Amino acid sequence: MAWLVSWFFHAPDTVAATAGPPISKQTQECLNCHSQFHPGLVQDWMHSLHSQVTPAQALNKKPRERRVSTETFPEGLKDVVVGCFECHSLNATNHADNFDHFDFHINVGVSPPDCQVCHPAEVQEYSGSKKAHALGNLQKNPVFHTMVDSITSVAEIKDGKLIPVGASDQTKNDTCFGCHGSRVEVVGTRTLSTDLGDVVVPKLTNWPNQGVGRVNPDGSRGACTACHPRHEFSIEVARKPFTCSQCHMGPDVPAWEVFEESKHGNLFHSKERDWNWDHVPWRVGQDFRAPTCAVCHCSLLTSPEGDLVAPRTHDFGARLWVRLFGLPYTHPQPKSGDTSIIRNRDGLPLPTAFTGEPASEFLIDAKEQARRQGVMKGLCRSCHNRDWVDGHFDKLDHTIRETDRMTRAATELMQIAWDRGLADKSNPFDEPIERRWMKQWLFYANSIRLGSAMGGPDQTSFQTGWFDLTTHLREMQEWIDSRPKSQRP
Amino acid sequence: MAWLVSWFFHAPDTVAATAGPPISKQTQECLNCHSQFHPGLVQDWMHSLHSQVTPAQALNKKPRERRVSTETFPEGLKDVVVGCFECHSLNATNHADNFDHFDFHINVGVSPPDCQVCHPAEVQEYSGSKKAHALGNLQKNPVFHTMVDSITSVAEIKDGKLIPVGASDQTKNDTCFGCHGSRVEVVGTRTLSTDLGDVVVPKLTNWPNQGVGRVNPDGSRGACTACHPRHEFSIEVARKPFTCSQCHMGPDVPAWEVFEESKHGNLFHSKERDWNWDHVPWRVGQDFRAPTCAVCHCSLLTSPEGDLVAPRTHDFGARLWVRLFGLPYTHPQPKSGDTSIIRNRDGLPLPTAFTGEPASEFLIDAKEQARRQGVMKGLCRSCHNRDWVDGHFDKLDHTIRETDRMTRAATELMQIAWDRGLADKSNPFDEPIERRWMKQWLFYANSIRLGSAMGGPDQTSFQTGWFDLTTHLREMQEWIDSRPKSQRP
Amino acid sequence: MAWLVSWFFHAPDTVAATAGPPISKQTQECLNCHSQFHPGLVQDWMHSLHSQVTPAQALNKKPRERRVSTETFPEGLKDVVVGCFECHSLNATNHADNFDHFDFHINVGVSPPDCQVCHPAEVQEYSGSKKAHALGNLQKNPVFHTMVDSITSVAEIKDGKLIPVGASDQTKNDTCFGCHGSRVEVVGTRTLSTDLGDVVVPKLTNWPNQGVGRVNPDGSRGACTACHPRHEFSIEVARKPFTCSQCHMGPDVPAWEVFEESKHGNLFHSKERDWNWDHVPWRVGQDFRAPTCAVCHCSLLTSPEGDLVAPRTHDFGARLWVRLFGLPYTHPQPKSGDTSIIRNRDGLPLPTAFTGEPASEFLIDAKEQARRQGVMKGLCRSCHNRDWVDGHFDKLDHTIRETDRMTRAATELMQIAWDRGLADKSNPFDEPIERRWMKQWLFYANSIRLGSAMGGPDQTSFQTGWFDLTTHLREMQEWIDSRPKSQRP
Repeated sequence: MAWLVSWFFHAPDTVAATAGPPISKQTQECLNCHSQFHPGLVQDWMHSLHSQVTPAQALNKKPRERRVSTETFPEGLKDVVVGCFECHSLNATNHADNFDHFDFHINVGVSPPDCQVCHPAEVQEYSGSKKAHALGNLQKNPVFHTMVDSITSVAEIKDGKLIPVGASDQTKNDTCFGCHGSRVEVVGTRTLSTDLGDVVVPKLTNWPNQGVGRVNPDGSRGACTACHPRHEFSIEVARKPFTCSQCHMGPDVPAWEVFEESKHGNLFHSKERDWNWDHVPWRVGQDFRAPTCAVCHCSLLTSPEGDLVAPRTHDFGARLWVRLFGLPYTHPQPKSGDTSIIRNRDGLPLPTAFTGEPASEFLIDAKEQARRQGVMKGLCRSCHNRDWVDGHFDKLDHTIRETDRMTRAATELMQIAWDRGLADKSNPFDEPIERRWMKQWLFYANSIRLGSAMGGPDQTSFQTGWFDLTTHLREMQEWIDSRPKSQRP
Repeated sequence: MAWLVSWFFHAPDTVAATAGPPISKQTQECLNCHSQFHPGLVQDWMHSLHSQVTPAQALNKKPRERRVSTETFPEGLKDVVVGCFECHSLNATNHADNFDHFDFHINVGVSPPDCQVCHPAEVQEYSGSKKAHALGNLQKNPVFHTMVDSITSVAEIKDGKLIPVGASDQTKNDTCFGCHGSRVEVVGTRTLSTDLGDVVVPKLTNWPNQGVGRVNPDGSRGACTACHPRHEFSIEVARKPFTCSQCHMGPDVPAWEVFEESKHGNLFHSKERDWNWDHVPWRVGQDFRAPTCAVCHCSLLTSPEGDLVAPRTHDFGARLWVRLFGLPYTHPQPKSGDTSIIRNRDGLPLPTAFTGEPASEFLIDAKEQARRQGVMKGLCRSCHNRDWVDGHFDKLDHTIRETDRMTRAATELMQIAWDRGLADKSNPFDEPIERRWMKQWLFYANSIRLGSAMGGPDQTSFQTGWFDLTTHLREMQEWIDSRPKSQRP
Repeated sequence: MAWLVSWFFHAPDTVAATAGPPISKQTQECLNCHSQFHPGLVQDWMHSLHSQVTPAQALNKKPRERRVSTETFPEGLKDVVVGCFECHSLNATNHADNFDHFDFHINVGVSPPDCQVCHPAEVQEYSGSKKAHALGNLQKNPVFHTMVDSITSVAEIKDGKLIPVGASDQTKNDTCFGCHGSRVEVVGTRTLSTDLGDVVVPKLTNWPNQGVGRVNPDGSRGACTACHPRHEFSIEVARKPFTCSQCHMGPDVPAWEVFEESKHGNLFHSKERDWNWDHVPWRVGQDFRAPTCAVCHCSLLTSPEGDLVAPRTHDFGARLWVRLFGLPYTHPQPKSGDTSIIRNRDGLPLPTAFTGEPASEFLIDAKEQARRQGVMKGLCRSCHNRDWVDGHFDKLDHTIRETDRMTRAATELMQIAWDRGLADKSNPFDEPIERRWMKQWLFYANSIRLGSAMGGPDQTSFQTGWFDLTTHLREMQEWIDSRPKSQRP
């Protein structure tokens, strides 16, 4: 990126003085005002490749070095840099959030179908992924819907008793839907008084939101800015684990915590400033010397000599064979990113039965599992020999089996509590003993599996690991044993 | 800072060879010994601007680029760099910690009134803030005093029963007062035998301490080194969130944890090495492209073109309209940094009543709240449009209301426990059920509010968030229900 | 390291084109294949000093600047760089993991006796340390062995009751032995089919593992790669706290969490990119301006002028006088790194009795304690004056006393529970009340002591600190009081 840094170093910092890359007349008009009103936003864009390179120039690179995946661009876009107007005016007829803004027709948001104009392969991969369906997978699934509502419901005391009074959209947007995405719809207009007079803009529901499964005013799913934030669209940012950690952290999915304490995380933190974060393709050993999330789950990788190690994918489950977190039991990855269509043996929209049996027809088969694991092992073997890799994955398989057994034990205790009337199964997620049961799989088993998968020995032990898993299983039993057997709640 | 790095690169690294910036004779004498005895300390100073720039030179900058806020300096200070003697000899008559040290009269500590000689605006702002009163706000308030003592009290077993035997000054200094500050007083002298013979020095209580509200031997309040650590006095360090995180972390105030998982934190961690951490004023978008704590709460900000975005303040509450953490209920910011003067409806030194009503006469009014929120929104609008900003703050307002309702519910349950004699209200902070109640507001509600304010979806959900808030509220009820109604503790 | 960076910048990135440093014929043959099969591994090595410097060149440095601690090298090693064959062929007769690999006799692993060829002082220091004995200290001690098994045991439900069914080697490798090390033994061979035909390799138990006390196929103890990871062997990595944090984190030993929130951690995070991570010796104030783990516990330190501050040690307990974590009570450091030989007053292999009295004959005496504390204080005084340092250590001594009293109180409550038959002492680590007792010392008291030792006020307060220590002690009492006195489990 030396040329870019150099360009900015010598260039004056204000937009007015920008020279060189061709900017469309429309974008220049945007910049004339917005560099005053939103200087941070405009500077962000000025540090992006979008402000430096035209699509025509982007195509001049060798195929493997390109960041665009189309070879054809709409008339008028090819020879100007990718500015405000180029993105915020696309597909206007589909955008319920399009509005008249000083005689320009502008979309408030930019959605995957807009990005698709230059990046079709990435949008297509993403669109079929679990991430793109992350909102519907919670909302359209009555089990998960109940879980979300139970966790976020306000309560009040009436006659000495706690009464849940319901969960609000805003709190869901602040919690679960903060990562999963919200439904952004246009519900009228609002008028803002500005220095330039009144401005009428669309009024949006559940906004702002940058969750990965956001439903946009054009009906599309996904928010590219979840991982390519703001207007710098930096590949460096997307490749660094801080991006993924925005959501993949905490007791329910401590991938970040595991990475941090792993050898890989150590090397990343200790040496990342010496690595090349911008080169496409990303060369193993030369550009980086320990994997980040993107290395294993997304990036186009080659050897320093140019041999392909792994093709790029924006379906972040495409290299995964088993699903380790989020649900009571592990299971093969689902065939479709839309998991709300799954039905288990009991007719519930869950990928396993209550006792662990997988809903196989909705899940990838053993052959596909083996293929995907082979891709991942191939990545590992860039740095590790086969003994090492095989031993590591054998250990993970063992962890999967043991944690599933522990979930089974907790579930059987939970069933005893339900059967004895110590808790009410009609909502399985709201009572204290049910929360303990949830923590067994949602926190502890997940944590152990992620720790096993990525080498985080604390996260498997004392940090929401085996210590908690065995302690709280005994506490579940102690709680059950301390209640009269015939009690009803 | 290239010139400084360059200077040190070419300069020999030992003090003896230092040339260039004029050093006072007294400071040179200090350096002659202390560069041998405390090489790390002296090197720290050598990397500071204090060792490079005289006050006269500092004044040569344009007003907005200055780091000094006075235009007049005492005789003798103006044309030498700011060395050991310049700081450690000021206001000697006020300093109970002044002592004769090889014929120099030296203060052990440097306190805000000393820093005030060159930085009067900063000291004045700080002196009225909650930070400056952080020790008294705990110690002079019997409610908080009881809380501190209960949390840190040693216990022993006598006749099979736990007996609290009191909290020590040293443990308080290690815990609460580690951030809030300790009272440093001179209580005699001690004699140290050194290579240069016996040295008699003041004996200080509760030392060392760098808490923000430290009471110094000159009677002043505050420790500038809390945020401008050691002798490098680096603006870079103060601007980075690691400084604030020293205290603003953990379950009681997880501001750091929220920042880390936020989009802002991602951008900071991913890109900070490319930003300019030293420029004054700090230019939005040009010097940095995502806010740190200092951006929102302290720094002088301008646009790249020099338009003022926000003036500098060292009262870190000056841009805040509502107080989100540390107390059961949210409430408007207090008018005075000394919150021990507040009296609520029930006569207690708390900003709200037990049921949430604010002690309004001690708190800023709605107009001042709106003004301050306007300042903060103005900051946000450097990068975000008004829709985004308004939506974000609406969500925060909603979170405030919901978490206050949840605190109200927990408090009503607590009251039931007290009323039934299941716990003893005379100390409301020492029994297990009372600790559960505390965690509802001190940990979970705080965490959710900070997560909502700064965009940390995990901290609002599973990491001391709504999951805990709703789980433990039910557990409070379960505990109460499982006790005989007439039991007395 | 500028010369190294420069070398690589101008050099082509593939092995084939490497020129300059003399590479042995054998290593060149290794590289010819492995640069294709393991490009990341080979690139890692290419970024190491091992690939750049011959032992003869390493000896040309002044003694204090050397990274090798021998002056004599075996024939043939002195004038080639330290490549694949040089390390993986050493001491072949001792290596049960030696195998015939395309006519080379290669050891799968490199063990301390191999590293000892060039680094004898380091290996000797390490070999006597607790780290080298970390596996045996768990496995050969029946108390700790029981603890490990209890924490990691799978359980099943039979007839409505939880039945522990035992802990597996693989889960222990994933948890406790992930840091402590596993026993790696050769148990036959396995045949891998590769592009170059079948390859027969040794079959290893408990592999991969990089725990500090790993027992290797040559019978030696330790894994240098635990802290000098992979093939870059970077002193920068070992000096950064991310390396130590791989194990010294989490509720049982939150050294990393404390460092992060300490002033030292703040300075490290804020300024580390400006520091010199490669210079030997490491110059206080010039190369770094706040300590990392390595500064206090390992590195050779001098002043900028070359005065010795502390000699290098690879026995990481050598500068420690008291043991703060891992056991119920603090106690003087053990004389031997093999702590399984200790017997307390009651004949148990623990360094204190159940009531806290030390097993003095196995522990260093007061004089040695004072000597070691003197070394550590000397380090601190590079930057802090004596008042500061003495005050800090007095506070730590006080913390040690108070937390030991709190452990004593918890242990007495535990004894009451055992005496009343509320829990079964035959395994003191498996029941919920026993886990509560464990957390009192293993989590909370440890956390407080580490926070006190290194200045982490949150880790002493609300983050597994005094808040938890006093809350859960009361909860232990509440639990006991709520049980019928004659109950047997």
